[in-house]
Amino acid sequence: MSQSIDIAVVGASGAVGGALVELLEERQFPVGKLHLLASEASAGQSVPFKGRNLRVGSIAGFDFAQVGLAFFAAGEAVTRQYASAAQAAGCSVIDLSGGLPLDQAPRVVAEVNPQVLKTMQPPYLFASPTSAATALAVVLAPLRPLLDWQRLSITACLPVSSQGREGVAELARQTAELLNARPLEPRFFDRQVAFNLLGLVGAVGTDGHAQVERRLIEDLRQVLDAPVLKVAATCVLVPVFFGDSLSVSVQAAKPIDLHAVQAALEGAASVEVLEKDEYPTVITDAIGQDLVFVGRARNGVDDPTELNLWIVSDNVRKGAAHNAVQLAELLIKHRP
Amino acid sequence: MSQSIDIAVVGASGAVGGALVELLEERQFPVGKLHLLASEASAGQSVPFKGRNLRVGSIAGFDFAQVGLAFFAAGEAVTRQYASAAQAAGCSVIDLSGGLPLDQAPRVVAEVNPQVLKTMQPPYLFASPTSAATALAVVLAPLRPLLDWQRLSITACLPVSSQGREGVAELARQTAELLNARPLEPRFFDRQVAFNLLGLVGAVGTDGHAQVERRLIEDLRQVLDAPVLKVAATCVLVPVFFGDSLSVSVQAAKPIDLHAVQAALEGAASVEVLEKDEYPTVITDAIGQDLVFVGRARNGVDDPTELNLWIVSDNVRKGAAHNAVQLAELLIKHRP
Ligand SMILES: NC(=O)c1ccc[n+]([C@@H]2O[C@H](COP(=O)([O-])OP(=O)(O)OC[C@H]3O[C@@H](n4cnc5c(N)ncnc54)[C@H](OP(=O)(O)O)[C@@H]3O)[C@@H](O)[C@H]2O)c1
Ligand SMILES: NC(=O)c1ccc[n+]([C@@H]2O[C@H](COP(=O)([O-])OP(=O)(O)OC[C@H]3O[C@@H](n4cnc5c(N)ncnc54)[C@H](OP(=O)(O)O)[C@@H]3O)[C@@H](O)[C@H]2O)c1
Repeated sequence: MSQSIDIAVVGASGAVGGALVELLEERQFPVGKLHLLASEASAGQSVPFKGRNLRVGSIAGFDFAQVGLAFFAAGEAVTRQYASAAQAAGCSVIDLSGGLPLDQAPRVVAEVNPQVLKTMQPPYLFASPTSAATALAVVLAPLRPLLDWQRLSITACLPVSSQGREGVAELARQTAELLNARPLEPRFFDRQVAFNLLGLVGAVGTDGHAQVERRLIEDLRQVLDAPVLKVAATCVLVPVFFGDSLSVSVQAAKPIDLHAVQAALEGAASVEVLEKDEYPTVITDAIGQDLVFVGRARNGVDDPTELNLWIVSDNVRKGAAHNAVQLAELLIKHRP
Repeated sequence: MSQSIDIAVVGASGAVGGALVELLEERQFPVGKLHLLASEASAGQSVPFKGRNLRVGSIAGFDFAQVGLAFFAAGEAVTRQYASAAQAAGCSVIDLSGGLPLDQAPRVVAEVNPQVLKTMQPPYLFASPTSAATALAVVLAPLRPLLDWQRLSITACLPVSSQGREGVAELARQTAELLNARPLEPRFFDRQVAFNLLGLVGAVGTDGHAQVERRLIEDLRQVLDAPVLKVAATCVLVPVFFGDSLSVSVQAAKPIDLHAVQAALEGAASVEVLEKDEYPTVITDAIGQDLVFVGRARNGVDDPTELNLWIVSDNVRKGAAHNAVQLAELLIKHRP
C-alpha cells in the first residue's frame, strides 16, 4: 500500500461527488483513507465505497494536510474558500467547479492536454473544464491536424443535472405535476422546464453572455491551445435529466475531407463515432459511459469547408468525474 | 357576400389543418363554403367553425373546381397527388407540406416577400415555408439592411408536433410510461424522445443532411432572396409538445451594432424582441401567438461581427397556419 494516497472528495453528497466516489472504486484507484466532505446539511449521511459505508463529514474545520489529493465538486464558492489553503497545506487539488481563473487553475482534459501537468510542481492545483468543453475537446483535438479551423458555432443543450441534484428533482416534480394536470409553480428554475427549453442558463453578464457560455469558450480555447479561436456558444437548458447534447458547426479555411475526419475519430481515445446518417442520444448511448459519442459528421449543404457534428456525453460522469479521476491517475503516475 | 370565397382545407383533421380553420374564423376571413378534407380514416369527424360543426369529407373524388382556394396541409404525397390538378381546375393553392419544388411553388412569408405574389397569375400555386424558416425569415429580414451577413449557423430544436398529431401522442405516452416506471417501447419515433434529444429528424440524404435541414436552408434562402447565403442547419427533435426554439449565430462582414439590431427588431412586423439578458420560451411566450419572439441578441464574446439570437415561435400557428392565412388575405386583396 506504499503507493496509495489519502483523498478528500468535497461535495461527496452531490451528483458529481457521488460519481467521483464510484469511479475511484471502479478504476481501482489506489485510495488510502477516503474523506467525504460536504456542508453541515449532509454531514452524517453515508456513501458506499468498496463494500463499506463511509460517513460524510463537514468541510468546516477539515485539515487538508491529512490528504495528498482533494477533488472539489461543491460549487465555486467552496473552491474559492478552501482550495488555495488546501494546496498550501501540501494537498494537490483538482477543481471541478470552475471557481478559479484559468491562470491559477489550468484546465486539463486527460486525452487532450495532459502535458500541462508536467509543467507544474506538486502540490498541484488545476481544473477539469465544464463538462461540455471536456466532451468537445475530446472530439475536436484529434481533428486539429486535419482542419485549419476558423470558427466554431456551438449550441450546447444541457440537462437539468448540469444544475445539480436540485435540477433533477425539479424536472421530475414539474413533469409529474403537469401529467396530473396540477397547476405548475416553478421553484428551482424561474420557468417551466418540463416540456420547454430555457434559452439562458444561470447568471448572465452585462454583454448578454451567460457565465456558462463564456466558460465553455474559455475552457475550450485553453484545452485546445487555441487562444484566439472564434467560438459562438449558446447554452440551452433542456428537459433531459442527464447528458450533454451538442450541435457543433466548424468552419475551416479549406475543404474538409470527411473520410479523414471519420478515420481520425475512429482512432481517437474515448471517442465512439457513428456513421454520418446515424446519431447517438444521451439515453441510448451516453449515460453511464466514459466515451464521448459523435454522429452526423457532414459537410455543409454546399460548403465543403463546413463540418457539422452531433455530440453526446454524460455530463456528470464523462464530462466531470471521469476526467477528474483520469487526471488524478496521471498525477500519481508522475509523483516524485 | 360577393367578396367571399369558397375554400377547401386539406388535412382538416390534423394539427395544422385545425389551426387553419380556427384562424379563418378568428381573422374573419371572408369564407363562403368551407370544405374540410382528410383521408377516409377521418371522414365523418366534425370540426367546429363559426358555431357550427362541419363534417370532414374524404379528399378522394373531391372536385376542386368548386372552390377558389385550397390549403394543403396533409403531407407531401397528398400535395403531389392533388395540388396541380386543383390549380388546373381553377383553384388557387397554398401548400404547407413542402411537397413541391421551389420553382413550382415559391415559398412566401407574408411579412417578408409578399411581392412574389404580384409576379404570379391566378389561379396561384405557392407555398408557406417550413415553420422554422418562416420564423427565421420574420426575424432576419428586418436585419438585412443592417448586416452584410456571410453565414448563418442554426440549431433548430423542433417539438414533437412538428411530426404531427402522432408525435404529440407519442411524447405524452412515453412520458407517462416512464413516470410510472413501466418499460418503454418507442413506437412512432425510433427512440425514446421523452427526456431525450434526437439529433436527426426524419429522412436523411446520402450526404448526411436531413430533408428538414435541407428544406430549412432552401426555404430561407428563397424567402430572404439570398440564394448563395451560407447556412449551417441542424434540426433536433426535443421533448417539447409545441413551439420551435431556434439558436442562431449570424456572421457578418462588418461589426454589428446591437442598438441598431434591437431598434430594427422593435420596429419589425410580427416580432416581439426582449432585452439581451432576457429570453423567451415556447411555453411562456410563443404558444398560441402570431408573433415570433426574440431574445439574447448579443455579439460574439470577442467578435463584434457575430450576432447571436434566441428565437421561439409556435410551429403550428405562427410557423404554418398564420402565415398561410395571411397569404390568403393578400391573395384575395389582389383578386382581379
Ligand atoms: N452536474 C454537472 O454536470 C457538473 C459538471 C461539471 C462540473 N460540475 C460542478 O461540480 C460541482 C458539483 O455539482 P453537482 O452537480 O454535483 O451539484 P449538486 O448535486 O448540487 O451537489 C453539490 C455538492 O456540493 C456540496 N456543497 C454545497 N455547498 C457547500 C458548502 N458551502 N460547503 C460544503 N459543501 C457544499 C453539497 O453538499 P450538501 O449535500 O451538504 O449540500 C453537495 O455535495 C459544481 O461546482 C458544479 O459546477 C457539475
Ligand atoms: N406540424 C407542423 O409543425 C407543421 C408546420 C408546417 C407545415 N406542416 C405540414 O403540414 C402538414 C400537416 O401536418 P400536421 O402537423 O397537421 O400533421 P397531422 O396532425 O399528422 O395531420 C395530418 C393531416 O393530413 C391528413 N392526411 C394524411 N394522409 C392523407 C391522405 N392520404 N389523404 C388525405 N388526407 C391525408 C390527415 O388526415 P387523417 O386524419 O384522415 O389521417 C390529417 O388531417 C404536413 O405536410 C406537414 O409537413 C406541419
